[in-house]
Amino acid sequence: MDAYDIIAKKRDGRKLTAQEIDYFVENYTKGIIPDYQAAALLMAIFLNDMDQDETLHLTRSMIHSGDTIDLSEIKGIKVDKHSTGGVGDTTTLVLGPMVAACNVPFVKMSGRGLGHTGGTLDKLEAIRNFQTELSMGELIENSNRINIALCGQTADITPADKELYALRDVTATVDNISLIASSIMSKKLAIETEAIILDVKVGSGAFMKDLDSALELAKQMVAIGTGYDRETVAFITNMDQPLGNTVGNALEVKEAIQTLRGEGPQDLYELCLQLGAKLLLLAGRVQSKGDALSLLEETISSESAYRKLFDLVSHQGGDTSYIMNPDLLPKAKHIIDVKSRTGGFVRSLNAERIGKVALDLGAGRNTMDSSIDPAVGIVLNKKIGDKVDIGDTLAYIHSNSIDKAMQARIDIEQIYTIREEYTDPGRLIHAFVTKNGIKLY
Amino acid sequence: MDAYDIIAKKRDGRKLTAQEIDYFVENYTKGIIPDYQAAALLMAIFLNDMDQDETLHLTRSMIHSGDTIDLSEIKGIKVDKHSTGGVGDTTTLVLGPMVAACNVPFVKMSGRGLGHTGGTLDKLEAIRNFQTELSMGELIENSNRINIALCGQTADITPADKELYALRDVTATVDNISLIASSIMSKKLAIETEAIILDVKVGSGAFMKDLDSALELAKQMVAIGTGYDRETVAFITNMDQPLGNTVGNALEVKEAIQTLRGEGPQDLYELCLQLGAKLLLLAGRVQSKGDALSLLEETISSESAYRKLFDLVSHQGGDTSYIMNPDLLPKAKHIIDVKSRTGGFVRSLNAERIGKVALDLGAGRNTMDSSIDPAVGIVLNKKIGDKVDIGDTLAYIHSNSIDKAMQARIDIEQIYTIREEYTDPGRLIHAFVTKNGIKLY
Repeated sequence: MDAYDIIAKKRDGRKLTAQEIDYFVENYTKGIIPDYQAAALLMAIFLNDMDQDETLHLTRSMIHSGDTIDLSEIKGIKVDKHSTGGVGDTTTLVLGPMVAACNVPFVKMSGRGLGHTGGTLDKLEAIRNFQTELSMGELIENSNRINIALCGQTADITPADKELYALRDVTATVDNISLIASSIMSKKLAIETEAIILDVKVGSGAFMKDLDSALELAKQMVAIGTGYDRETVAFITNMDQPLGNTVGNALEVKEAIQTLRGEGPQDLYELCLQLGAKLLLLAGRVQSKGDALSLLEETISSESAYRKLFDLVSHQGGDTSYIMNPDLLPKAKHIIDVKSRTGGFVRSLNAERIGKVALDLGAGRNTMDSSIDPAVGIVLNKKIGDKVDIGDTLAYIHSNSIDKAMQARIDIEQIYTIREEYTDPGRLIHAFVTKNGIKLY
Repeated sequence: MDAYDIIAKKRDGRKLTAQEIDYFVENYTKGIIPDYQAAALLMAIFLNDMDQDETLHLTRSMIHSGDTIDLSEIKGIKVDKHSTGGVGDTTTLVLGPMVAACNVPFVKMSGRGLGHTGGTLDKLEAIRNFQTELSMGELIENSNRINIALCGQTADITPADKELYALRDVTATVDNISLIASSIMSKKLAIETEAIILDVKVGSGAFMKDLDSALELAKQMVAIGTGYDRETVAFITNMDQPLGNTVGNALEVKEAIQTLRGEGPQDLYELCLQLGAKLLLLAGRVQSKGDALSLLEETISSESAYRKLFDLVSHQGGDTSYIMNPDLLPKAKHIIDVKSRTGGFVRSLNAERIGKVALDLGAGRNTMDSSIDPAVGIVLNKKIGDKVDIGDTLAYIHSNSIDKAMQARIDIEQIYTIREEYTDPGRLIHAFVTKNGIKLY
């Protein structure tokens, strides 16, 4: 077996064996197979695709390239939730406390934001002194005490994926569904939870721009999880416009607190209820979706979920006064409004473009080395389907630079399209995918 | 413009512009674009192909990456002849003296053999003291004096092709017709002759195994040459079995001398006549093919071509006594015959496998660093269509090692397939390709 033959086989559209994939991944990670051979193989995979078996084998090889994280010391059934990345997606900060308040452990290792999408760790760091680095001992202890822990990854999981992803990024081989699915799932499966809920975003702000490709990605990820003997389900959810009303780290934390107090935007709350209900079912906490929804709604009305966020911040060293009084969160120097020049209904609000405006304001990072400004971002005052009169405020720009705010105003004016006729914002959840098939909503 | 976008464009099956190809080739050759991006682009080209324009642009970019060789100081119309590589192909050593004896300059920069195919320089070096390195001044002077010079390349022509070829070789992206055509033609066009005759081999011993792909390669090369304003024609010739009766360096030199004295194998002589006639026509030496053939036949009957080989060896420092007496050429210690165990007619004689046996005997090189043994090789006593009785000698093995000879005997016995029914050896020339189309023979 050698690298050349493996490249030639995939080049000719033939199926790679588990042994061949293992050989390639292992020797590439060791530095024995050079980047240029891996690049040729990646392009051959991109153009000739991998089938379900090959995708599962690749996932397995990438998991085996590094450490796995054993969560067996955490009591209860652990369910991981993963979103494929969106704009204004504050779900984890709301869902986590809700689920934990139902006495189901919510342990999540999150990433940082990149490009136009935000990351949970960055958001949490808007809270003074919040520690996103936890040792395995702290993670287990916190989880067993308060049912919730949110942190970054310290272990060396899936180094093969890291290297292959970096190579894909510079060789135009990122956007292949099998490669995306195995990359995401290798990182999920390396953390040993009992079940996985995937939130596959679709729309202008998501990596998957259309429903067909989102469904295909969801199917492949569910197949990988199932093939790895892990109960895996996926929701396909709307990312045609940002989720909730805010984009930016401190702004999203504030929105999460509002939502936990029953005062948040409906779409964010509804998504947390739907994901949470499935999570409670998978964790065996309830027997029916109805019971799950009641339990979750009660965590909001009783403020038990809000108190859980307080516990989380407290256990991870953060300043809890920020949770009691969100006005303490970092604030931008300037708040500039964007007014509408026309009347009608909001027709579209491209989420990726809104994410990029937030990025330009400093809310995100262009490369992993950039630093972010927690205070800045955008608050949307109008979303798709909302009625708008001339002079109404469409959005507020939070910026520490007047120049950047002025540019953002020009950009946001262009991003909002307003038409006379009403546009329905569309479904929040498009479909639900399990190993048994697809259920369209 | 950047490398990523160019890769993505070809990945998506779109056509690259001349500027994009130039940018990639230039920056890759400078080391600015890394191997892994070039590897991804090569695989995308391999799988999505290039059209005629792109292939011509790539050829042009590779030519511009290095020096070109100006032959304008050589008097007369220069016609280059190039074979795509075969087994036992001694054409250049026979054709060159025949053409030069007709007062048409035959200047050729040749390569060395690699793998199962032989190279003209290696063959010439079987003649004691023959110098394959000539300065430009010597090349021009020899050509103007005796109409013939055969040497290696000293100038730095097409460095981009050298680097890209080395990368293709390890990324399974060699066998793409556009890439093969641009690689060959860039090297040919960098040498400024007035016309080019291509001998595209097809069959078991050639890179092109079937007529369709040989025709496609020929068409693309002719299109490139024509697009570069160079008169270019191609013959498609049979390489299902070795050309002539010998494979091995000294053995082929001896066969060339025999052919120049009218005592060589018919297929080798016939091919030299056909290629030579086209060459004399392109050089404007004659007006009709009939005249060309008469002139060429006369160089054999009068021994003027044989004397031209003598002049060539003399002008390039070689020991001319080797030409007078070919028995002085390096001889192997052992000559072992391979006898037939069955009777009938030779049905097939796989040229690539014969080439590999010669390689194993030491006649060729596996890598560019290997050294070769000029004495060893194979003399074929029976070829396709020949009648064979039990006990007849099929071939003679010339070896300096008894062990290697014994292995070669086993191999050659297996390579000869003999059947009761007669098999026709097939046409020597399958087709002739010009810018105006294909003429099948």
